[in-house]
Amino acid sequence: MNDIEIDEVATPELDDPVLIEGLPGVGHVGKLAAEHLLEEFDGELVRRVYATEFPPQVNVDDEGVAELTCAEFHAVRTDGADMLVLTGDHQAGTNAGHYKLTSTFLDVAESFGVERAFALGGVPTGELVEEYTVLGAVSDAEGKADLSDAGVEFRPDEPAGGIVGVSGLVLGLGGRRGLEAACLMGETSGYLVDPKSARAVLEVLETLLAFEVGYESLEDRAEEMEEVIGKIQEMQEGPSAADDELRYIG
Amino acid sequence: MNDIEIDEVATPELDDPVLIEGLPGVGHVGKLAAEHLLEEFDGELVRRVYATEFPPQVNVDDEGVAELTCAEFHAVRTDGADMLVLTGDHQAGTNAGHYKLTSTFLDVAESFGVERAFALGGVPTGELVEEYTVLGAVSDAEGKADLSDAGVEFRPDEPAGGIVGVSGLVLGLGGRRGLEAACLMGETSGYLVDPKSARAVLEVLETLLAFEVGYESLEDRAEEMEEVIGKIQEMQEGPSAADDELRYIG
Amino acid sequence: MNDIEIDEVATPELDDPVLIEGLPGVGHVGKLAAEHLLEEFDGELVRRVYATEFPPQVNVDDEGVAELTCAEFHAVRTDGADMLVLTGDHQAGTNAGHYKLTSTFLDVAESFGVERAFALGGVPTGELVEEYTVLGAVSDAEGKADLSDAGVEFRPDEPAGGIVGVSGLVLGLGGRRGLEAACLMGETSGYLVDPKSARAVLEVLETLLAFEVGYESLEDRAEEMEEVIGKIQEMQEGPSAADDELRYIG
Amino acid sequence: MNDIEIDEVATPELDDPVLIEGLPGVGHVGKLAAEHLLEEFDGELVRRVYATEFPPQVNVDDEGVAELTCAEFHAVRTDGADMLVLTGDHQAGTNAGHYKLTSTFLDVAESFGVERAFALGGVPTGELVEEYTVLGAVSDAEGKADLSDAGVEFRPDEPAGGIVGVSGLVLGLGGRRGLEAACLMGETSGYLVDPKSARAVLEVLETLLAFEVGYESLEDRAEEMEEVIGKIQEMQEGPSAADDELRYIG
Repeated sequence: MNDIEIDEVATPELDDPVLIEGLPGVGHVGKLAAEHLLEEFDGELVRRVYATEFPPQVNVDDEGVAELTCAEFHAVRTDGADMLVLTGDHQAGTNAGHYKLTSTFLDVAESFGVERAFALGGVPTGELVEEYTVLGAVSDAEGKADLSDAGVEFRPDEPAGGIVGVSGLVLGLGGRRGLEAACLMGETSGYLVDPKSARAVLEVLETLLAFEVGYESLEDRAEEMEEVIGKIQEMQEGPSAADDELRYIG
Repeated sequence: MNDIEIDEVATPELDDPVLIEGLPGVGHVGKLAAEHLLEEFDGELVRRVYATEFPPQVNVDDEGVAELTCAEFHAVRTDGADMLVLTGDHQAGTNAGHYKLTSTFLDVAESFGVERAFALGGVPTGELVEEYTVLGAVSDAEGKADLSDAGVEFRPDEPAGGIVGVSGLVLGLGGRRGLEAACLMGETSGYLVDPKSARAVLEVLETLLAFEVGYESLEDRAEEMEEVIGKIQEMQEGPSAADDELRYIG
Repeated sequence: MNDIEIDEVATPELDDPVLIEGLPGVGHVGKLAAEHLLEEFDGELVRRVYATEFPPQVNVDDEGVAELTCAEFHAVRTDGADMLVLTGDHQAGTNAGHYKLTSTFLDVAESFGVERAFALGGVPTGELVEEYTVLGAVSDAEGKADLSDAGVEFRPDEPAGGIVGVSGLVLGLGGRRGLEAACLMGETSGYLVDPKSARAVLEVLETLLAFEVGYESLEDRAEEMEEVIGKIQEMQEGPSAADDELRYIG
Repeated sequence: MNDIEIDEVATPELDDPVLIEGLPGVGHVGKLAAEHLLEEFDGELVRRVYATEFPPQVNVDDEGVAELTCAEFHAVRTDGADMLVLTGDHQAGTNAGHYKLTSTFLDVAESFGVERAFALGGVPTGELVEEYTVLGAVSDAEGKADLSDAGVEFRPDEPAGGIVGVSGLVLGLGGRRGLEAACLMGETSGYLVDPKSARAVLEVLETLLAFEVGYESLEDRAEEMEEVIGKIQEMQEGPSAADDELRYIG
């Protein structure tokens, strides 16, 4: 196969669509948020992007059918805006691969007339988050006012390590093409899949693109995660309690 | 040398041959199974595939002669079906290399008229296996009925981490070419070379392709492995017994 | 994007400019020194070099605007000499990438008429440095006399592990092109960012290129680092003091 | 620069020259042996091979002059045979790089009329070696008799892990070109630079190519290594002796 192959599944007319990128990353925040949009708005698969930069892997679905690893674009229509949502299970495996893939993703987006993009992701805080602030970064300073109005926080020189992977390059390469791109980063511990952070990011997006979406399924996942956190805390407390007893006995 | 070089050793006429892939992987299940077919049916070497993606290595045979690392295709004729069996000592070293190599393997198979493929492998359970179930995955849902009839089990979304390497891509890239491909994965602990799991996979293949094969040599290897396992268990029990004594003395 | 893309920001006339390379490396000595020149002489950005060999990353500035990772050339004019100063946040990610990038950097330098280059860096000593010796290496033995006169020390076969990265290749590839190149390596512990070592390197450069520069801002950074070192030493002494007490009590 | 660049330093007429490869590897046996030939027979530098697959590095000589990492061919004339000796400080950094580099090395050798090659190296035993056996492997079974007569041992399927790197490919790729290639592997512990193993390999080569060479300088290096080994053994015995005392006291 070629280094990159694109399957054109459908090419619907979209009205001034906005690119929403949600590939795997910190806390799976971007991926959770993007997939939530697909579920809630019944996204239509429009493109599959295969790349030799992805792991050599198939995923087996619930019918036992193997699907070659790829990134997917879905068209999503809401009352507020049309979106082209990019999701997938993998990022590229090399530096150069990230650049090549993101260039391809931006080509696809351009072919649908995209002029504006949001890269969704998480920013790790290293501790459990109580209030889910959404940090922002933009390809062009003009875009900041709208984001600030929607509750996005801009902190000088943060995130400290920059923004890496496809999200970073949607801003970096997108900006070089004249795309109006922003990154919305939900604060998250960085240790766990974080549906609450994904919700915080989506709430900003709702304001920015004037659509409305329900959060029931994300809340269910959040509750599951709370249980996981609860069990981890128990386990952490458990052994030390046991230790105490042992010390007492010994 | 070029990135990939193919030596055409022989080009026999084969009757509707089925590709059988058995490169190294979990428990060496696929490799054991494929090599067993070559031994039992006296396979005829037809192609050698050299690739700069393989390790820079020669293997020294029992005569002291060095052979450059390669993958090999053998033609195998049975009462039930003709097969083109792919074996070798290595997988590719990079993501892109896996895609390039598997594409080449599928090209070779096509040149022999292959329209159907079985990728043989193991699926790790993490514990010693008593009953050797064979899990399946297919490139197309239509292929499932025959496999189920032959005792293959389909479990939704399993294996959880997908199928990686050449086996995965025989399904993924093969499926994209219209090849009818399936993966047969014998359960195996994942810790040891597992001839019993290879036999379980071959028994499924016997049913599917209507041939018969003896298992004496695989049984011999299985017995050798049992001895190895026995010794490991002894060693694991040994020290703790010694520990007990020491504690008793101390 | 292409593997390497060069933005031509400005193309001022420079009088016999000298290339000064200061990319990240041991103790960030080269980077600190090069950036100090840019600050003190108000460098003019002339080229940005983007490369798919760099990490897929944007850095967020103090306004929240994301900038794609790149290397930059600035024109710097002093009383003594004009300079073309190369700085950036990253080196390449692969062997071949280092060669390709450095070749590009040398092409850019040539396009400005550069015939002479200084690669600035640090050489690790493994212990805190009291006197900051500057070690030298040259692409051509003829260049040694001037450097020795300026206080640069030449030690046979040092640094023992050679000079790696872009600095090494400015000498190696530059030398093959007929560029008169030298590496100036300030001794540094190797554990910390070292503004004092950067100053030692710059003082040599002042003598060689007959310019004068102030060091106030580097001194401020040096003082900050002294404080950091002080705190580290306190921490190291702290626990052992506590240990002593515990031993005393125990 | 190009991926590979070859400097033609000299092109002397050689009489049926034999390629001797001695790049870094186990115990530096091959490198020591090849460099010994250069020193004793006053080799003439004929080619330098630069490659972007090598580390991005310059080595600084005893004059402070930096030399870009490369592999070198020297012409060596002896009473018995002319040799083309390949040495250097590095192997390639990737699988594909090993193949590309070795292909280039074989091209250079062919341009000098080489039809026969010896790859020199070490084979690790994991323990200190008393008698330095030299193991062999050949590209063609016909070459075995001469080697056996010269004291080379052939052991079925050894070395177990095959022969990797440039040495392996001189046999593997060389054999595919019709080159008569052999690998001479001196047994060595694998933990230390081993001049004695290098001598054992050279003594075999003397017999095969009917030349004579002195070993004084290798003996000096061997004595230095004996001292190193002695010190290591002392250190190993020291603490355990101390341990015994502590136990006694305690």
